[in-house]
Amino acid sequence: MSNSNTRGLAGVVAGTTHICTVGKQGTGLTYFGYGINDLCDHCTFDEVAYLLLHAELPNADQLAEFKSHLHAARELPEDLKTTLAAIPADTHPMDVLRTGCSMLGCLEPESNSNPGRAVGLRLLAAFPSILCYWYHISHHGKAIHLDTGEDSLAAHFLHLLKQQSPDPLETKVLDTSLILYAEHEFNASTFTARVVTSTLSDVYSAICAAIGALRGPLHGGANEAAMELIEKFSSPDEAEAGIMEMLAKKSLIMGFGHRVYTESDPRSEVIQALAKDLATKTGDTVVYPVSERIHAVMKREKNLFPNADFYSASAYHFCGIPTPMFTPIFVLSRVTGWLAHIYEQREDNRLIRPTADYIGPDTRSVAPLNER
Amino acid sequence: MSNSNTRGLAGVVAGTTHICTVGKQGTGLTYFGYGINDLCDHCTFDEVAYLLLHAELPNADQLAEFKSHLHAARELPEDLKTTLAAIPADTHPMDVLRTGCSMLGCLEPESNSNPGRAVGLRLLAAFPSILCYWYHISHHGKAIHLDTGEDSLAAHFLHLLKQQSPDPLETKVLDTSLILYAEHEFNASTFTARVVTSTLSDVYSAICAAIGALRGPLHGGANEAAMELIEKFSSPDEAEAGIMEMLAKKSLIMGFGHRVYTESDPRSEVIQALAKDLATKTGDTVVYPVSERIHAVMKREKNLFPNADFYSASAYHFCGIPTPMFTPIFVLSRVTGWLAHIYEQREDNRLIRPTADYIGPDTRSVAPLNER
Repeated sequence: MSNSNTRGLAGVVAGTTHICTVGKQGTGLTYFGYGINDLCDHCTFDEVAYLLLHAELPNADQLAEFKSHLHAARELPEDLKTTLAAIPADTHPMDVLRTGCSMLGCLEPESNSNPGRAVGLRLLAAFPSILCYWYHISHHGKAIHLDTGEDSLAAHFLHLLKQQSPDPLETKVLDTSLILYAEHEFNASTFTARVVTSTLSDVYSAICAAIGALRGPLHGGANEAAMELIEKFSSPDEAEAGIMEMLAKKSLIMGFGHRVYTESDPRSEVIQALAKDLATKTGDTVVYPVSERIHAVMKREKNLFPNADFYSASAYHFCGIPTPMFTPIFVLSRVTGWLAHIYEQREDNRLIRPTADYIGPDTRSVAPLNER
Repeated sequence: MSNSNTRGLAGVVAGTTHICTVGKQGTGLTYFGYGINDLCDHCTFDEVAYLLLHAELPNADQLAEFKSHLHAARELPEDLKTTLAAIPADTHPMDVLRTGCSMLGCLEPESNSNPGRAVGLRLLAAFPSILCYWYHISHHGKAIHLDTGEDSLAAHFLHLLKQQSPDPLETKVLDTSLILYAEHEFNASTFTARVVTSTLSDVYSAICAAIGALRGPLHGGANEAAMELIEKFSSPDEAEAGIMEMLAKKSLIMGFGHRVYTESDPRSEVIQALAKDLATKTGDTVVYPVSERIHAVMKREKNLFPNADFYSASAYHFCGIPTPMFTPIFVLSRVTGWLAHIYEQREDNRLIRPTADYIGPDTRSVAPLNER
């Protein structure tokens, strides 16, 4: 079983799933059988969230009830607000979400009267509140109200962030990106959530763990890294020169290629089109052209395609979202996929406990302290 | 690659390690080549912690310096104390440790000036403080001092917990149990920490995730479950009848058997002997005899052996440690093994991202909302 190919468990089947296909020929990415383009064209994120939590799309009544549960769960307990207010402004927002999730797990623990499904809804509704409450109190000293009256999660988040009703195109772009990011099979954060769940631990522990995994630059952090790269350049020609120099130095360029997809990432085209719409609307003449040029150079030089993170970066930028919020937005969406996998793991659980090849010292004896 | 045998990745090699062997014939359990019995006989937990963090046992000077770093890192920031004070008394202490770890990651984030190795030492030193500060403030309204002046981590923890200098035999028992629990190859919590680390996330995120995994009753929670079982019975005969009844009902009996060990758990004999010493010292005539009888019945009926968790339960009980603290003590110890694996993963990283066999719905089209 052990050879260099299984490093990182690449290609190793770690279980079965009903939830998602990634990179299967002809379908690209599906959630419970629905293609990602079909979902983006015909659903809102709230419907897709319902799909991931219930394995079927909602009808109108089910959707209304689902939203009403979510709306009612946007407020946060005072003790959580106090904790968020104590977190410094320069903290990585992923650490804020991880801490907020963990603290909520202390204040409203999973139990027979607050089962895992209720905890899941609560977290889905509470994450925009946790993120934006901390953001405004730490950056502007302002304890914001968490009841925006907005119907969708995307509009609610943008309203909380900007403290005003959001622009419809920006809301649509964010909503679509939330659909794109919602689920992706056994990616590292989802797999983390499943390993934690396999010990029969609680939903909060699994989600905290997943947030910690998504935080890494090789996973969710890639959209922030992509934005930082794009912002280094003030013209397409400058970008071309810069990328060529980075490639010559063998620097890692974030936002390209994928462990599972080999030819293209089906999410990239969708988000690229939206980023282009926003560029036109906002009159951008730098960020989008720079992004397109980086894309072209990476294709030409390395035959690499942009993944979901690359054009998300400029799309979020055009929506006026601060770069450190990019990965947290991934959490607002992916929590639905994590929950789907947590519930699935519980349905047919076995402890996830692999083994290792030992390459360490031979057996030896302890020498007394004074003889070492 | 996919068959029923790989469920839970049982027997699947997920990587290489220099740190630990588990269940290799003739050695049982080794940390960097040293057998667990040798370590228990000749080292303190503080030396073993150094071993796990540095791959070699310390000499006297190195040990003194290591302890001096740990002693200096026992105090907690005020904002962390405020957060701990807001956590209700009936919270699971594992949730407290998870939240304390996450909050500390906001207040003292990993960075170039606070690298992963420094974060590791800080967490090792801070966990007894986090646990006991919360315990006394939530249960007794008392904000305890965190500087006990005790030399070892075991004595420091018992002093914080009991608010007095600990008994030497109790300290020795706890110290030995910390050695036994410190490291165990790719167990579920350690594997979780490695998956999180593989995204290049920070040490706090990896440790939070590992705490969440260890919290589960199929993993670290087993010693608490064992104690709850033992305490149900007031005599060995009653225990025998009770266990026979549970076996007839196919109830899960915690503290027996192991995914990796097939004949015995080398840690069990060590902790059993210490539990017996404490039983004699405390004049116990119920808990230890009940434990021995459960052990005998499980051997006779199921040919199952006690694992490390079973006699730890009564040993901790005799030390006057409340049952909900059992799994948290596991954290105080296992954090050293987690850190060893985090540092090892970083040395030669590849993203841990397995794949899944899809068994869900066939490809289908989204119906309009009003036609569902």
